[in-house]
Parts: sequence; structure tokens; C-alpha cells
Amino acid sequence: MRTVDWQDGQVVLIDQKLIPWELSTVHLSDYRAVAHAIKDMTVRGAPAIGAAAAFGMALAARQAAASSTAELLMELEAAGDYLKSARPTAVNLAWAVDHMLSTARSRAAHQPDGVRQAVLEAAQRLADEDVAVNMRMGQHGAALIQDGAVVLHHCNTGALATVDYGTALGVIRAAHERGTRFHVLLDETRPRLQGARLSAWELEQLGISYEIIPDTAAGYYMQKGEITLCLVGADRICANGDFANKIGTYQVAVLAKEHGIPFYTVAPTSTIDLSLAHGGLIPIEERDKAEVIAPYGCAIAPPHFRARNPAFDVTPHRYLSGIVTENGIVRPPFVDNLARVCRGVTV
Amino acid sequence: MRTVDWQDGQVVLIDQKLIPWELSTVHLSDYRAVAHAIKDMTVRGAPAIGAAAAFGMALAARQAAASSTAELLMELEAAGDYLKSARPTAVNLAWAVDHMLSTARSRAAHQPDGVRQAVLEAAQRLADEDVAVNMRMGQHGAALIQDGAVVLHHCNTGALATVDYGTALGVIRAAHERGTRFHVLLDETRPRLQGARLSAWELEQLGISYEIIPDTAAGYYMQKGEITLCLVGADRICANGDFANKIGTYQVAVLAKEHGIPFYTVAPTSTIDLSLAHGGLIPIEERDKAEVIAPYGCAIAPPHFRARNPAFDVTPHRYLSGIVTENGIVRPPFVDNLARVCRGVTV
Repeated sequence: MRTVDWQDGQVVLIDQKLIPWELSTVHLSDYRAVAHAIKDMTVRGAPAIGAAAAFGMALAARQAAASSTAELLMELEAAGDYLKSARPTAVNLAWAVDHMLSTARSRAAHQPDGVRQAVLEAAQRLADEDVAVNMRMGQHGAALIQDGAVVLHHCNTGALATVDYGTALGVIRAAHERGTRFHVLLDETRPRLQGARLSAWELEQLGISYEIIPDTAAGYYMQKGEITLCLVGADRICANGDFANKIGTYQVAVLAKEHGIPFYTVAPTSTIDLSLAHGGLIPIEERDKAEVIAPYGCAIAPPHFRARNPAFDVTPHRYLSGIVTENGIVRPPFVDNLARVCRGVTV
Repeated sequence: MRTVDWQDGQVVLIDQKLIPWELSTVHLSDYRAVAHAIKDMTVRGAPAIGAAAAFGMALAARQAAASSTAELLMELEAAGDYLKSARPTAVNLAWAVDHMLSTARSRAAHQPDGVRQAVLEAAQRLADEDVAVNMRMGQHGAALIQDGAVVLHHCNTGALATVDYGTALGVIRAAHERGTRFHVLLDETRPRLQGARLSAWELEQLGISYEIIPDTAAGYYMQKGEITLCLVGADRICANGDFANKIGTYQVAVLAKEHGIPFYTVAPTSTIDLSLAHGGLIPIEERDKAEVIAPYGCAIAPPHFRARNPAFDVTPHRYLSGIVTENGIVRPPFVDNLARVCRGVTV
């Protein structure tokens, strides 16, 4: 089962708010419902929201009553803006929408139904490609994990964060499939607890040795010498290698540097935004404080207590040992090497 | 109302498991119940568990059916061992028990009732002294907080962590009472959420400006330049200045160093354990994984999911700007200066 799929004219999403308690899907036939599912994190993870948005564009094309292709393109542009506004930080969302729009525009001379079909096929290719790209990243990254390794992982970057297989957890999965013996410490990842809820659920299913730890304990295990490698995902990587990822990633990077532990991000080239020179330019989403003081409806403090909830942080490239992409592991100098992998060069 | 008190022959504790929802007390007439209340964190915070243990010894003296003082001393030693075993990391617990035992032994020539009375009076003095010492720490430390400061605080170190007034939060309170204008960011402090539940509740009552943040966001706010000072408590400070405190403290210290932000611990000299040369010798308590995956009964993951729960970590002295004690702010070299404040010298 894919995290994001298209069935019978509908977008089908695994409802990630119900994991680890229940594996069920939502079936959406309105692109605005797809945007809402992205916003409320029914679907989350940069590659997964990219694919969801691509299928959302296919839905929008299907929904559009446009009788001319010009009208259809205008409706698609409006739908694209609506989808892009759902979450600001991950670039995959805008990237997927723009990819669907350029597909549609390239069919401007066709009939509306031809455009509709082209957008759907492009979305399906994008989803298929996501899985293929993840498996290639897994192969490139698996060699980073040695027998006896203890890997610290933040947030969720597995099959649930992508169409299937995963990015950083995909590397972990690939190492496991090679027979490497290692252990994973999963940051629980407050406030949304993606590590404790989603990553642990995935590693349970895959039979990979893991333990959940509070985010407060990562430094403790590094200090004890128990962690040998840090792997995280990315929501947007700038031209210089600075990258946004789930809040708490930056702290892990600082701690890894302090302890001399290699620290890698794993992300497809669709996550690289060469238009941004450095991480200070990435918009950081701030979400509702209820996610902090009443996670999943369980109140830990009264609703009038004050709280902040930044959803992402930016890790400067100097903390990065490398970036695992489908075209190989990018190492410093990132400005040159990221530009190369984005041109399709294998490194 | 004091966090730990003695009323009508009983130990009275604010039930901290019910804060912020309800302010209520438990009344205990068996020293074993006091040990249990320490273990299950009905009462927590190094100074508060020291005072609770002292009153627990007074209860044990009252409970003992001993007809001779020699018998009573033996019963008190057994009770002391029982109380000390409740939690291993904070030295205040053992310190308070030993203080009560030496008080009792110094009355070996008296009748049992004289010993009972002496132990109770010593426990009451210890509790009174805790409040006085905290207010002195507040005065010494308040000058660290300037107008416009943003103070990062970890765990709870307020009135609830002590008999009254607090250690690090006592410094914050003293600065507020002086009219200094500043803001506090409270690490929520997973897994037990003492920041979100207890510290926020205290600052609400005191009218001090604060926001709760997920532990994952401390580095984010440091990177943005918003945090100007870090204040934490301590459960045990070694002769060289290494100290144990709530899990996550070490990470805050590493982040503070990385960003050039002053980092202080605030603790009475009763927290200093000159018998331990360095932090590697401090026993670290590991608690039930249920505190991580089902905090306060709210399940975030199924009970069979694996998790770790170290309750404390050790921050090496090189990360410390200073140690605020009732005898002044101790600065490096800590070996010499801690020995001096423990002899009662003002620094």
C-alpha cells in the first residue's frame, strides 16, 4: 500500500493521524480536501506532500468544468496556488505543483481532456519516480551504516513520509535488507511525535531494532558514545547546503558536531531549491500552540497557557557531513556539487 | 503553602502529579509512603525531596515502637536506607537523611522521645533553611538577568521543586520582584513535562512573561539570537563542577556554548557532593518507559513499542559559566571555589 495513491478518480492517502493505532485511508475527490489533508498533516513528509499535491492537481483538472484548454489552465493555476499555500516550508509541494502546471501548459494546443489525462499521467509518473528515487538513495546511503552502528534518527522519513520506501529511513531499510546489523534510536520528535508514532511503527513492521527516546536524551546517548551516525530528512535544501527540516534537527546537528559524529541528510533532488542561496531565506511555518499543549487531544497544560510551535528549523551546511541523493552522496563544497546533482550528474 | 510541610504529626506534600489541573495535598503518616511519594514523583525536585525525606525521618522516629534510644537509632538507620533508595541521582535526599541520622546520634544519651523531638526540629529547621537559602540564591542570581533578557529554563526549579521560592526559578522570581523586565522560554521537558506543567503554572501565578516551547525548539531560538541566558537547577554537583540535572540539560549546555550564551546552574550547597570527583561517578536513574510512550496515562504509542527513559544527564563543568549558590556565584576554577562555598565562605 502506498502512502499516496490514485484510485478510481480519487486521491487515496494513508491517514497518518491514526498511525500507530489504525491503518486506514481517506479517499478525496476535491483538490481543496487534498490541501486540507496536507495542512492538517493527514499526509506529511516532504516527498509525500509533493505527490499528494501532484494528484491534487490531477483532481483539480478533473473537477474543472472548463470547456477550453485556456480556461482549464487558469483553473489549474488557481488550484496550484491553493495547494501551495497549505504548507510553506517543504519545497517539494511547490515543485510538484509547478511540474504539473508546466505539463499542462505544454499541452496548451490539446483539448481539455488531453490536458487532464496528461496531468494525471505526470502525477502518476512523479509518484512512481519517488519510489524509484528512494530506492536509489537507499543504495547510495546504505554503505554509511556499518555492522554495530547505532543510528540516531529524527522525525519520520520512511514510507509514510514518501510515496513508499522512505528517504533517511529508506537508507536504514536498505542497510537492513543488505543484512547489516545495527540499532536505531528514534527521537520521539515533539510536538507531533512522528518518531514515536510513525517511525517506530514502520521499524516494528520491518523488524529493525529500535528504541524511542525523548528528544531530550539524544545528547545523553551521544555523550555516552552510543551513537555512531545521525540520519535525517529534509524539507528544503538551499544552493549552499543549508537545509530546513523538522524542528529539533538543528540541535541534533550541533550535538553531532560536538561529539564528532557524522551527520547526513537524505533527500531527493526535488527537495533542492537552487533558487535560495542560503537557509535564512527559507520560510519557517509556525503552527498552532495546541499541538504543543494538547497533542492529539491529550491536554498537558490548560488552553490559556502560552506556547510557541515552530514546525521547522534550518541547519547550516557546515554541520553536514553529506547529502544522500538519488544521484549519490553530495559532499562539500555543496554549492558546486548540489548544482551538479541537480543537473543529473552522478557524484 | 509550602510544597513540603509538617502538620499535626503528618508529612504534607503538594501532589505535583495533579498540577496544573488541581492544587491539592497528600497527608502521609508512614515514612514508607513518603519514600513512595518520592519514587512516583508526587514530590520531585532535589531540594523538595531532601525536605520530604527529612520529614520522613521524623515520621519514622514517631512510628518507631522502640523503647530504648539504641533501638530507635537502629530503626532510623533502616528507615534512612529505605528513603535513600527511592531515587538515586539527587544527593539532597541522602544528605537530608544523613543529617537527620547524625542529629539522632548526637542525642544518643537522651530518651527516645527526646531523639524524636530533636529529629523533627532538625527537619523543620532544614525546611525553613531551604526557603531562606533559596531567597539568598535569588538575590545573588537576580543580577544575571538584565532588562530585555530572554531566559531559557529547563524542567521545574521553582517553589514546587523546593520547600518554597525555588532555585533557578527563584532567581527569575527575584529578578521579577526587582522590577526587571524580561521573558522566559520554558522547555516543556519531556518526558515528564515539568516545564509545561509545573514551571508554566508557577509563572502564571507570579505574572512573569513566559512561553512553553518543545525541547526541540531551544536551538532554534538560540540560532535566531532570541535567548540571552540559560538557567537550570541541579540534582548533584561534583567537586569539579560537573553536575547532574534533568535529562536534556546537557543538550541545552552544548547549544548555549555553540551560541556563546551564558549558562548557569542554581543550587544550594546541599546539592554539592564533594565526595565525587567528577560527573562520571553520578548514578543516573533510568525510569519506566511508560513515562515516554504513555505520559500521564495518555498513550502516544502502543505499550509493546520499545523506548528508553534516562531521567538525568551530566553536564561537564566546562559548559558552565557559573554556579549560583546561597554563598554567591561560584566561577571557575570550580574545584577550589566549590570547596570554599561548602565551608561557608562567601564568594
